[in-house]
Amino acid sequence: MGLFTKDIETMDDLFLHVLQDIYYAEKQIVKSLPHMIEKATSRDLTAAFKSHLGETEMHVQRLEQTFALIGQSPKGTTCPAIDGIIKEANEIAGEIAEKKVLDAALVAAAQAVEHYEITRYGTLIAWAEETDKGAVAKLLTTTLNEEKAADKKLTAIAERKVNQRAAS
Amino acid sequence: MGLFTKDIETMDDLFLHVLQDIYYAEKQIVKSLPHMIEKATSRDLTAAFKSHLGETEMHVQRLEQTFALIGQSPKGTTCPAIDGIIKEANEIAGEIAEKKVLDAALVAAAQAVEHYEITRYGTLIAWAEETDKGAVAKLLTTTLNEEKAADKKLTAIAERKVNQRAAS
Repeated sequence: MGLFTKDIETMDDLFLHVLQDIYYAEKQIVKSLPHMIEKATSRDLTAAFKSHLGETEMHVQRLEQTFALIGQSPKGTTCPAIDGIIKEANEIAGEIAEKKVLDAALVAAAQAVEHYEITRYGTLIAWAEETDKGAVAKLLTTTLNEEKAADKKLTAIAERKVNQRAAS
Repeated sequence: MGLFTKDIETMDDLFLHVLQDIYYAEKQIVKSLPHMIEKATSRDLTAAFKSHLGETEMHVQRLEQTFALIGQSPKGTTCPAIDGIIKEANEIAGEIAEKKVLDAALVAAAQAVEHYEITRYGTLIAWAEETDKGAVAKLLTTTLNEEKAADKKLTAIAERKVNQRAAS
């Protein structure tokens, strides 16, 4: 983007910019999930991260299909938001030795990532509908539903641990 | 935090760390909302940002009450996530001249901020409940509900604009 020009002129330009933002974000998530899988100690959290890595790779592909649908080549644009969320996750995880506390921090970090994606996909779908891109809206809704399900699964994992402790 | 020590040992340490994170975040939002109010062009978006600035100042106070409830002094810890989200909002808004497109970008940026807060408060409330901090959970739930309402209001503002265009 130029510093002295206003490069985003239309809703289509804005849509493309945010699409490039979430494309970069999804690719960073693909890179960071293996580290989270390594760090997680509970079996169900490890399994949830592994399954979400597979989903995330699919989300990258759906974004590439979205670029194709709007006649653009897939390209990322640096997303300081996801970089900040991942940096924070790494920093906090590096501070924790106790397994239960580390898993709780990893769940919180992963949910911050999910919420960033939920808001971005929600925005893109609204704009796609507004600008009559029905096929794009449908494709991204599939991903949005998977992100929401991943967030709910993480809440369930966190709550199950609490109940286990209460029952023990 | 030390680089060579593991400073977060218990769930209470983790709770305090994330509390300091959201305290820093809320204070950054108080600083950035006036710029968003300045940039917003539609009357209802400006009004929504103004009303949320008042709410955000209250959220800072509730966090200070939370620190008091757990016997700690209010202190922030740099939150790269909110810094990234705000940086991204400023960068994108700087690229847009067209009023309608600028407002759409501002709504999207504000919703990214809301979702970051929603995930952090959700996590803090779950941990407060888990560690028998009922009064803390209640206080933070009031804020969480306001963040969720602010997010819904932004969606309604965005949709109203679409309907206006459809009807015109």
